[in-house]
Amino acid sequence: MPFTYTLLHQDGPARAGVFTTPHGAIRMPCFAPVGTQATVKTLSPQEVQELGAELILANTYHLYLRPGEERVARFGGLHAFMGWHGPILTDSGGFQIFSLSALRTVDAEGVTFQSHLDGSRRRFTPEKVMEIQARLGADIIMALDECPDPLDRSYNEQALARTHAWAVRCAASQQRPQDQALFGIVQGGVFADLRRRSAAFLVDLDLPGYAIGGLAVGESKAQMYETLEVVTPLLPADRPRYLMGVGAPEDIVEGVARGIDLFDCVLPTRIARHGAIFTADGRLNLRNARFADETGPLEPGCDCYTCLHFHRGYVHHLIRANEIFGLRLTTLHNLRFLQRLMAEIRAQIAAGQFQAFRAAFLARYLGESV
Amino acid sequence: MPFTYTLLHQDGPARAGVFTTPHGAIRMPCFAPVGTQATVKTLSPQEVQELGAELILANTYHLYLRPGEERVARFGGLHAFMGWHGPILTDSGGFQIFSLSALRTVDAEGVTFQSHLDGSRRRFTPEKVMEIQARLGADIIMALDECPDPLDRSYNEQALARTHAWAVRCAASQQRPQDQALFGIVQGGVFADLRRRSAAFLVDLDLPGYAIGGLAVGESKAQMYETLEVVTPLLPADRPRYLMGVGAPEDIVEGVARGIDLFDCVLPTRIARHGAIFTADGRLNLRNARFADETGPLEPGCDCYTCLHFHRGYVHHLIRANEIFGLRLTTLHNLRFLQRLMAEIRAQIAAGQFQAFRAAFLARYLGESV
Repeated sequence: MPFTYTLLHQDGPARAGVFTTPHGAIRMPCFAPVGTQATVKTLSPQEVQELGAELILANTYHLYLRPGEERVARFGGLHAFMGWHGPILTDSGGFQIFSLSALRTVDAEGVTFQSHLDGSRRRFTPEKVMEIQARLGADIIMALDECPDPLDRSYNEQALARTHAWAVRCAASQQRPQDQALFGIVQGGVFADLRRRSAAFLVDLDLPGYAIGGLAVGESKAQMYETLEVVTPLLPADRPRYLMGVGAPEDIVEGVARGIDLFDCVLPTRIARHGAIFTADGRLNLRNARFADETGPLEPGCDCYTCLHFHRGYVHHLIRANEIFGLRLTTLHNLRFLQRLMAEIRAQIAAGQFQAFRAAFLARYLGESV
Repeated sequence: MPFTYTLLHQDGPARAGVFTTPHGAIRMPCFAPVGTQATVKTLSPQEVQELGAELILANTYHLYLRPGEERVARFGGLHAFMGWHGPILTDSGGFQIFSLSALRTVDAEGVTFQSHLDGSRRRFTPEKVMEIQARLGADIIMALDECPDPLDRSYNEQALARTHAWAVRCAASQQRPQDQALFGIVQGGVFADLRRRSAAFLVDLDLPGYAIGGLAVGESKAQMYETLEVVTPLLPADRPRYLMGVGAPEDIVEGVARGIDLFDCVLPTRIARHGAIFTADGRLNLRNARFADETGPLEPGCDCYTCLHFHRGYVHHLIRANEIFGLRLTTLHNLRFLQRLMAEIRAQIAAGQFQAFRAAFLARYLGESV
């Protein structure tokens, strides 16, 4: 089997394991930086690799619209096109259609939408999304799903029926199962019965991995964590579990505590471009005038390029002066922060110390007393 | 002497030599990338070094306004602040005052101007500019000069008197002559008699280097080249000659042919951020739709990171998608193009083949038949 999840350590619901793909193994729990348009914003693929990332995500919706999946295929697929030779995951485009594009209309067969770039009318069906992702050539591909407001029960009920039917059609039309692992997406909003129904339905399809979608989009953190507690016990232990669109450090730790193996999010790179950085003591915004004269690294003890070479005051200056190099430096730090966090999480699970680590990390990161 | 120009080879007026500074030797002819705000836009200092650059320029006007020269000094000077440990040149701020700031008024003592950032009223005198540059700590510093329209004779006559008086005051007030080489700036527009008067006046000051200012700002290329032919023979052979603000490949080759040793310009980095690249066959703009499907490097035979790793079609995609990594890739290529050009120029001068090289380069770059 090209795609195998091997569970190495378990510490309560928290899992440490390895997922194999044609472009390499991925140690889990894992955070995947997002390269929406076939580039992790501001960074070279070499830098992303040096950060320790073992998987990156790219967005089907964006690449379909520009440069087009046929063009990417002519360059030899995403790996060759963007010069990233490790594992890649592409999403289905569903989330972007429901958040970015105008005038979408959903029917049983698929979804019609307008491009956010030029207003052109486009249509995604499960079969079309499988064809696009086959051409892009990622190692992990996602089923087309509908992404409703997680708090709207009646919409979630209707959407779930479509999401399930589309998952069946994605599995049936997948073109390259030996090269690409198709993950199903459990939906159902914050409603436990819907989530259970969705997990049961998708597990029956016997897919190589499962995602939990429709979270971190409006519900409370408590509702998100409760939903994870409902879903992960229903997923097979020998398949990775992917919590889509989640990248806040506290949510990663709480997700791992509930059995999640894989995360992705634009958060670390997006906030970096606004001057905000992760530290073990919480987020800081380097635009703040108080950093103008500060010597020393962004975070003491960090081994990223930024922290090894530059003072906080210099990065503050670059951010204030709208210099691109400043965005690179904060992006490098934030992604390295998460890679160090994931390595620490894996080590703590292996040592059977994850619960103590979780409590100490959250107390410090969230600024609560231990 | 900390600052020594050693002439190694001469081929007609073209010179190859080495200029020593406290932060290392600079092989000349040399092109210095511009790091206006203490960063060569989009690049890390490590990348700039790997490109082969041996000198970079930073702008006194910008750094005085933000983050302020006192702050830079507290971080240990520009080298430590920006993490560039090779030679640095700072300009005097004169050119920026006359091109960027509003409501400037010049008098015999100095120039009063408004900050382009916040409108605050500021004043530069020769003494103030020497103090600012001492705090910034560059290896090469420039005298304060007035930069008139090169075609306006009466303004040039008035301005020249001030520029000369200010050069005397800069030399008298320079604070760290052992650490910083003060270069004078020959002005006089396109008027040969004024240029001769200016060169003679400044040579009498016995400065460690001489710049030619006020060119590439409105006159024709023929007028620029003629002005160089007037000035360089009047400058001492044992001091470097710096043509300020010139970076088009054809102008570099023509400048070297007239005895210039040093160039700087924002051109290669600025056009890169608009998608334009240098090649031996002239400039190309990668935004053009015809590059969308092109495989192969930006320029065949180029050894830059971009050309070694990415297709033209990928860089085209990044530029079209407004991705910062695209700006990095074109910037790396353009600066490497100029460093390779300078290395080739030095080798051709050493071999006594510069005139033949010049003719062949210009014919190909400008698209003329040989």
